[in-house]
Amino acid sequence: MNAQAATARTGTKDDIAVYMREKGERARAASREMARADSGLKNACLFALAQLLLDETSSILSANEKDMRAGKAAKLDPALLDRLELNEDRVAAMAEGVREVANLPDPIGELTDMRLRPSGIQVGRMRVPLGVVGIIYESRPNVTADAASLCLKSGNACILRGGSEAMNSNQAIARCIQRALRQAGLPEDSVQVLDITDRRTVGEMVSMPEYIDVVIPRGGKGLVAAVSSNARVPVIKHLDGNCHVFIDRDADFDKAVAVSVNAKTQRYGTCNTMETLLVDAPIAQKVLPELGRIYNEAGVELRACERTRAILPLARPASESDWAEEYLAPILAIKIVEGIDEAIDHITRYGSAHTDAIVTENYTRARRFLREVDSSSVMVNASTRFADGYEYGLGAEIGISTDKFHARGPVGLEGLTSQKWIVLGDGNVR
Amino acid sequence: MNAQAATARTGTKDDIAVYMREKGERARAASREMARADSGLKNACLFALAQLLLDETSSILSANEKDMRAGKAAKLDPALLDRLELNEDRVAAMAEGVREVANLPDPIGELTDMRLRPSGIQVGRMRVPLGVVGIIYESRPNVTADAASLCLKSGNACILRGGSEAMNSNQAIARCIQRALRQAGLPEDSVQVLDITDRRTVGEMVSMPEYIDVVIPRGGKGLVAAVSSNARVPVIKHLDGNCHVFIDRDADFDKAVAVSVNAKTQRYGTCNTMETLLVDAPIAQKVLPELGRIYNEAGVELRACERTRAILPLARPASESDWAEEYLAPILAIKIVEGIDEAIDHITRYGSAHTDAIVTENYTRARRFLREVDSSSVMVNASTRFADGYEYGLGAEIGISTDKFHARGPVGLEGLTSQKWIVLGDGNVR
Repeated sequence: MNAQAATARTGTKDDIAVYMREKGERARAASREMARADSGLKNACLFALAQLLLDETSSILSANEKDMRAGKAAKLDPALLDRLELNEDRVAAMAEGVREVANLPDPIGELTDMRLRPSGIQVGRMRVPLGVVGIIYESRPNVTADAASLCLKSGNACILRGGSEAMNSNQAIARCIQRALRQAGLPEDSVQVLDITDRRTVGEMVSMPEYIDVVIPRGGKGLVAAVSSNARVPVIKHLDGNCHVFIDRDADFDKAVAVSVNAKTQRYGTCNTMETLLVDAPIAQKVLPELGRIYNEAGVELRACERTRAILPLARPASESDWAEEYLAPILAIKIVEGIDEAIDHITRYGSAHTDAIVTENYTRARRFLREVDSSSVMVNASTRFADGYEYGLGAEIGISTDKFHARGPVGLEGLTSQKWIVLGDGNVR
Repeated sequence: MNAQAATARTGTKDDIAVYMREKGERARAASREMARADSGLKNACLFALAQLLLDETSSILSANEKDMRAGKAAKLDPALLDRLELNEDRVAAMAEGVREVANLPDPIGELTDMRLRPSGIQVGRMRVPLGVVGIIYESRPNVTADAASLCLKSGNACILRGGSEAMNSNQAIARCIQRALRQAGLPEDSVQVLDITDRRTVGEMVSMPEYIDVVIPRGGKGLVAAVSSNARVPVIKHLDGNCHVFIDRDADFDKAVAVSVNAKTQRYGTCNTMETLLVDAPIAQKVLPELGRIYNEAGVELRACERTRAILPLARPASESDWAEEYLAPILAIKIVEGIDEAIDHITRYGSAHTDAIVTENYTRARRFLREVDSSSVMVNASTRFADGYEYGLGAEIGISTDKFHARGPVGLEGLTSQKWIVLGDGNVR
């Protein structure tokens, strides 16, 4: 930690601003070099980092132990402590993740749609880095390696601000990143992991459009909302995932059961888990008893409309607020609807535009659902749990966007780039 | 004008908020219908609008006369009055513009990159409208027809807020749009032209993310800056165009002269006009005398570095501020640089990331310039004046973005859309 940081750690609002602006300036300068760096250099750096993480496992684990001890002493939530904890397997997985990013195709420099125009010029687009990416995250230290790799690969510089509870772990990983950058001859300022976690650093980050091109908060709804409000820098937001499965009257029974069970029970705490099941009235008597039985066995609490409760008397009555809730828990809201129009209306009204699925064998209604449901992922006969960067083949995921602007749904390397226009001429004039 | 608007016209801040939120709610509802509208319906509406504009030329012109009389009485700037004025030719051009938009391919529904994944699902993306677009513009009434057509074609609803000086003209055009929508059976609320121009409507527009998905200010830097600061809705910003031409040491003499003259003198007031000419030292003696002669004949005032002035004594000395200036006038800054590195550094430091060109026969430096200059358009051996939606083949342009996020450079229909993820399965689960 340099003198600058030492001041800031105990500093005033102005000190924080000075500290952050200095980081921003360094990042901006490094981003120019990174944009030019060729694929070989970037990959060499990532492979070096993967190896260093393995070589330094013991020092990373002892840093992590410090964080764990402090976390336990501070009586942190056990779920948070679980996310914070590293072990040999987790460090190895981190290294493997970095290697996977190295093996992805380099998005930078890609030329698309180069077309000749009547004027004689040739016009197309070139994919380029966004510049400087700010990432704000919470307890999981593996995000430090993950996020740094994705930014590096896409030719961006980044400023990473992890949680205070993971400070020692993050700094140990940051030291590996710095060494890898040095080994590859890339600018060390291209990845800066903040060594202070004062909350005001976040406020500064979203107020420096001259130094930071996009901010990505990775964490709960509270963090995302706090970062987004009053941000002067674009933010890739991931708000809630209130996902639906709609079982259409023409659904195949087996597919309806498989998708509805998987979407709810495969994992409860993920954003792409189904939170409300909509069932078309003509098929309700057929599918609900079986589903009720399976959910009951799995220990899923059901909150249902009156018509559903006539079929599943064990379900508790749903209140209005249940339709809008992201439970992230073994709880499911169920509603019987009269056809696809009511289903789409319900999703439009209560959904969060994250991921919604229809189960049907009907061609026309499948097409309508795909077109009319305005969510970042829309599915036919597949579990909502597939909404994920790895499952979609992005290789890795820097976040999931619930915005429509720029990047939507799972965001991979491409979301960290923009396309500029390229014009090739031969002395052409207008 | 309905009772609601009548209240707002003379109303308080709250009345404006109520008025705008009502518009927003209507637009949001209409946007759902528009997203579903098929190409045939949208095109029928646009062709009907083109015809109505021609049929209603006399009523549009008499509305415009009212605006012109009021504008002259208010002693508006002659340039502004010129932009405000309509005549038969301009109305015909407006109708032709609408017809051209109708003839563009419909971007909505396009499926791309539908790939099978190892899990068995097929994943790809579908192009969909953004939803509701807010457009804020100044005197030119043709923007009303232009902007409405582009939003309609891309399946968006829009709220248009023109300048107060063009109120009568805009309302006359709006009546044609409403009739065309009715004729085609599309929701009339999909295009709402505000009938009050209170400045506070702008503030409300950028504060309603629940109703408006993007705001596009079309106008001077002042308007854009005012709209962007504190916007809670994404803004497609067009700030300044401080464009450069760099004549590399290996430039072809004729191409260097043609491009440098055209980029400056073809039109002075456009954002893609060159404002600074950078000349590589080894070629300065060769190209500057000829360029100086031509600029002099064209009446272009030159402001140059000392080394340039040794060759062109008529040039006035440039001050530091000249390098950052967007003149929009027959003035040109000239600087001799030592090679491409200094040229790129200069552009990075003083440019506005709009459009920059290199003139060279050198393959490696052409590639470096294309890759390293971080502007929305980067050109080799072509005039910066080509940076334009029509020239690029977008068919029409809703604006030029100087941002990197979402849309960059000339923004056509595609900039008014987003892509959602589509997953097709066969009962697949994780």
